[in-house]
Amino acid sequence: MIPQRGKELLSAARPVWVETVSWHSSLATQIEGIRYMRRTKYQELAIIDTVDFGRALVLDGFIQSTYADEPYYHESLVHPAMAAHPSPRRVLILGGGEGATLREVLKHRTVAEAVMVDIDGEVVDAAKEYLPAMHRGAFRDPRAKVLIMDGAKYVEEAAARGEKFDVVVMDLTDPYGPEIAQGLYSAQFLGKVKGLLAQGGVLATQAGSSFFFEEEYNAVLRNMSANFRIVVEYTVWIPSFGYAVNFIAASDSADPRGLGAEEVDRILAERGVSTEFYSGRTHVALMNMPIYRRFRRT
Amino acid sequence: MIPQRGKELLSAARPVWVETVSWHSSLATQIEGIRYMRRTKYQELAIIDTVDFGRALVLDGFIQSTYADEPYYHESLVHPAMAAHPSPRRVLILGGGEGATLREVLKHRTVAEAVMVDIDGEVVDAAKEYLPAMHRGAFRDPRAKVLIMDGAKYVEEAAARGEKFDVVVMDLTDPYGPEIAQGLYSAQFLGKVKGLLAQGGVLATQAGSSFFFEEEYNAVLRNMSANFRIVVEYTVWIPSFGYAVNFIAASDSADPRGLGAEEVDRILAERGVSTEFYSGRTHVALMNMPIYRRFRRT
Amino acid sequence: MIPQRGKELLSAARPVWVETVSWHSSLATQIEGIRYMRRTKYQELAIIDTVDFGRALVLDGFIQSTYADEPYYHESLVHPAMAAHPSPRRVLILGGGEGATLREVLKHRTVAEAVMVDIDGEVVDAAKEYLPAMHRGAFRDPRAKVLIMDGAKYVEEAAARGEKFDVVVMDLTDPYGPEIAQGLYSAQFLGKVKGLLAQGGVLATQAGSSFFFEEEYNAVLRNMSANFRIVVEYTVWIPSFGYAVNFIAASDSADPRGLGAEEVDRILAERGVSTEFYSGRTHVALMNMPIYRRFRRT
Amino acid sequence: MIPQRGKELLSAARPVWVETVSWHSSLATQIEGIRYMRRTKYQELAIIDTVDFGRALVLDGFIQSTYADEPYYHESLVHPAMAAHPSPRRVLILGGGEGATLREVLKHRTVAEAVMVDIDGEVVDAAKEYLPAMHRGAFRDPRAKVLIMDGAKYVEEAAARGEKFDVVVMDLTDPYGPEIAQGLYSAQFLGKVKGLLAQGGVLATQAGSSFFFEEEYNAVLRNMSANFRIVVEYTVWIPSFGYAVNFIAASDSADPRGLGAEEVDRILAERGVSTEFYSGRTHVALMNMPIYRRFRRT
Repeated sequence: MIPQRGKELLSAARPVWVETVSWHSSLATQIEGIRYMRRTKYQELAIIDTVDFGRALVLDGFIQSTYADEPYYHESLVHPAMAAHPSPRRVLILGGGEGATLREVLKHRTVAEAVMVDIDGEVVDAAKEYLPAMHRGAFRDPRAKVLIMDGAKYVEEAAARGEKFDVVVMDLTDPYGPEIAQGLYSAQFLGKVKGLLAQGGVLATQAGSSFFFEEEYNAVLRNMSANFRIVVEYTVWIPSFGYAVNFIAASDSADPRGLGAEEVDRILAERGVSTEFYSGRTHVALMNMPIYRRFRRT
Repeated sequence: MIPQRGKELLSAARPVWVETVSWHSSLATQIEGIRYMRRTKYQELAIIDTVDFGRALVLDGFIQSTYADEPYYHESLVHPAMAAHPSPRRVLILGGGEGATLREVLKHRTVAEAVMVDIDGEVVDAAKEYLPAMHRGAFRDPRAKVLIMDGAKYVEEAAARGEKFDVVVMDLTDPYGPEIAQGLYSAQFLGKVKGLLAQGGVLATQAGSSFFFEEEYNAVLRNMSANFRIVVEYTVWIPSFGYAVNFIAASDSADPRGLGAEEVDRILAERGVSTEFYSGRTHVALMNMPIYRRFRRT
Repeated sequence: MIPQRGKELLSAARPVWVETVSWHSSLATQIEGIRYMRRTKYQELAIIDTVDFGRALVLDGFIQSTYADEPYYHESLVHPAMAAHPSPRRVLILGGGEGATLREVLKHRTVAEAVMVDIDGEVVDAAKEYLPAMHRGAFRDPRAKVLIMDGAKYVEEAAARGEKFDVVVMDLTDPYGPEIAQGLYSAQFLGKVKGLLAQGGVLATQAGSSFFFEEEYNAVLRNMSANFRIVVEYTVWIPSFGYAVNFIAASDSADPRGLGAEEVDRILAERGVSTEFYSGRTHVALMNMPIYRRFRRT
Repeated sequence: MIPQRGKELLSAARPVWVETVSWHSSLATQIEGIRYMRRTKYQELAIIDTVDFGRALVLDGFIQSTYADEPYYHESLVHPAMAAHPSPRRVLILGGGEGATLREVLKHRTVAEAVMVDIDGEVVDAAKEYLPAMHRGAFRDPRAKVLIMDGAKYVEEAAARGEKFDVVVMDLTDPYGPEIAQGLYSAQFLGKVKGLLAQGGVLATQAGSSFFFEEEYNAVLRNMSANFRIVVEYTVWIPSFGYAVNFIAASDSADPRGLGAEEVDRILAERGVSTEFYSGRTHVALMNMPIYRRFRRT
């Protein structure tokens, strides 16, 4: 019934990276090489070269970021929250080992200090060596303070010290991903993070896929809403993830939805922020686009 | 070096549909059944039941539309162009065998006649039987006229008869897809389609992925620009495609970018259009979101 | 560095069945249809049509037998043990739901009764309807007695009744497969099975892959050796499994290695056994071929 | 209908090598690293580390040999023909870039000269560096003469020079593989190779899979039979190929089927040949085992 397709499969032989998209779908992408692969104390770490996405950082089998599309992810994660704050001086980043979130935060010249806390020093070291186009020197910025430690522990200790931040960015693996990150999306932990925010502070996080992992996403959204008066969802397709990632920005006072295109462009210009994807118009698009959920029909 | 992952692969056995995303990436999605599969006169046709996306129409191995996400595609394809026209009465659809584009067009009660031309009657028949939630009775609407014939031939003949349409929607397979559809994105053919537009007419088409097939997409964009004064690009992630699809709307006079959220909502309300994804705010998002292109770094 | 391979992946879209070969390898084979798929009380059952192997029975994701290669499996499982017994009259089959092992046993006209015990009546029913070329009417043979019950329970009860068999054939899923079958390869259970053997009786079983699952295979071999004086290993590649399956025949008196090609051919002729793969020469090949184990080098 | 399988796919993320088994089946095997990958003048060459098979040589996407199973292949290719010849002194090897066929040939201390002709010097160089356990120093044996040139051209020139060999071994890619090798299985070329055989000479070749590529295999068999009086088929499962490879040994006078187990063992002992898989009993198994063909049922 099916015609013989001849030489097709025959010539399809190749190395591929198989990445989980959902419990029932996976993305296979051709690779040219595996630059680095080892089990760290916390996770499986790989740096691979893909044909479609260029160099990529992979943790526990999930592509975290690639040269071909990481600005979509990192700019979307960082700038709406930063723009919503009138003058972010101290910023905390939880996770973000490849240094690209740090890079985006430091673009805002209002920032006097950016503390980045990643549990896995081996990821940071590998990023320094193999992913120069991701950090672009951010690790050497004098305003950057990189701590290798458990983010949850840092939050406890910083709270005890009475530290405050204007913006906190959570750049962690998915809420349905490796166990290491799961507790970090609980209402309780998000409440602790909120305790680190100064007056007018904003929290931004990625939150996985509302389309493929609706239940898990809803839980994160619920946990954010339990802690903040203003909770803003937005979504951007990340090609190498195989899905549109959801982001959530939250605050008790600042609302990124209140910013128009011109205002965002003015803020970026004033702060000396130059971007590749994010802009005033992009901001308007993100704030108006519905997030993805499955239509259920049978 | 890689730890033994134990029983993982062991339990991964299952039937999957492998779909091309790009020349170097593919999406494998678990299926529950193959409802229908045969080679028609023009293409390989399959109706499958997937776990993640529900029922799906597949042509030549490319998923065309699924129950779980087709409103994202069909509403995005149809409504920006329809909203940009002050009063679309006659609409032409090239392709769109599953009837969902027809369904969206007919939601506008300004429409007196919607002519749908699909080359493959077997696709239409299979859709009627297996995809009720896609057409939702559109094929039986008295304003619908469904012709089984070559769209290119129809365009020639309609031009000879002096027919005119207010909106033309091209819902064909990708510009880099099966040969059958490729000529339909040429500057020459697009010029012929333009010849069918009445004063103030608008043409809308899908155009594949600008991220994975940038060159092919650019060619379509060029061919549209060679024919129309106003050419508007926008993009929406379609989960079952594995990428954000690009759409292009074009006209010599109507510009969807000029419509604000309230105006779009008012137009939809006046015309009795009820949607699941598209709205005034969605329109604003689509008109402001950059389209996807690869960042090139090494 | 890798050249663009053009349209290859593009045309690779198709439905495939992904089957586990080992913990780290899987076989993907194109399917034309899924005839039947449901979760029975005991396992996931599927009847699929593959391009390379024709119709196939799949249990818990493992292909059990296919039209294109099942004689390699079933003839190899049954005939060496049957030939080694001077006159097998009563035969017990544990498992073998598709009826092909029963079919091979009944070919020997010495057999007065063949008791087949399979836990899953739904597998037997599906085989009757969808796999006629496997059972070929064996279920209706007056000498066949098919019981739907737990094989372990049957063995207990038959022992209590003092039943004896000349040959017992274990046609169960792999020792590393679904839990349902694992206890059936224990030394204790094999001892109970041995208790059902009449004087001169022979037990034959499949035992998975010694190449990919060496440890698990060695355990089965050990458990057999703990119970029988004579233990004979042999192996046959089964294309649809993606590996050479190992068989073990055991007895306290009969030794299939003692049979020459002519003797086997004479026995088959006398008993009216006509086969597609097994013969005197095949027997000699099986008895002399080493079984597969990984060479370990670094 | 299909139960949710939970975290299975989620944890399946990994790098795999996808190898063609047939036009409709492929084998995916987990890799730990890509040691070397480049397009040579003739083919795509890769040296990869797999979890199941250890280090592997891959040409044009086909695994050629792996550390875990190459003795099955190389010993089966070489020794039946060598054993069938009373005293092989000069041996020609066409292909065999990894040096393992050369290694097996040189084990026979009757051999005074082994000429190995491989078209692709980059394969030989990569093997020298990355595959020490394959050649095991064979390239440095003073009896070895390695020529980097087109095998077809060598055959022409050697015939013109009147060279003769006692055994010729063709260790080339599959008859349905890359074009580079296809002409080498034609009746015409096999006739030219025969012209290089001394009185009593034997030719041995691999010939792909008779199960998955029956038509192509039959053509090779026909081409051999058109040239030789005695043509012997035998088959051995090679795990990393995903199939049992077929071998053909041919001669006008020597017949490996005439050798008993003891005779083979005596020959090996006399010539100082120590092996890991091949033996007198293995020889008997190979000579008696039927080759694989699909059973055709519907």
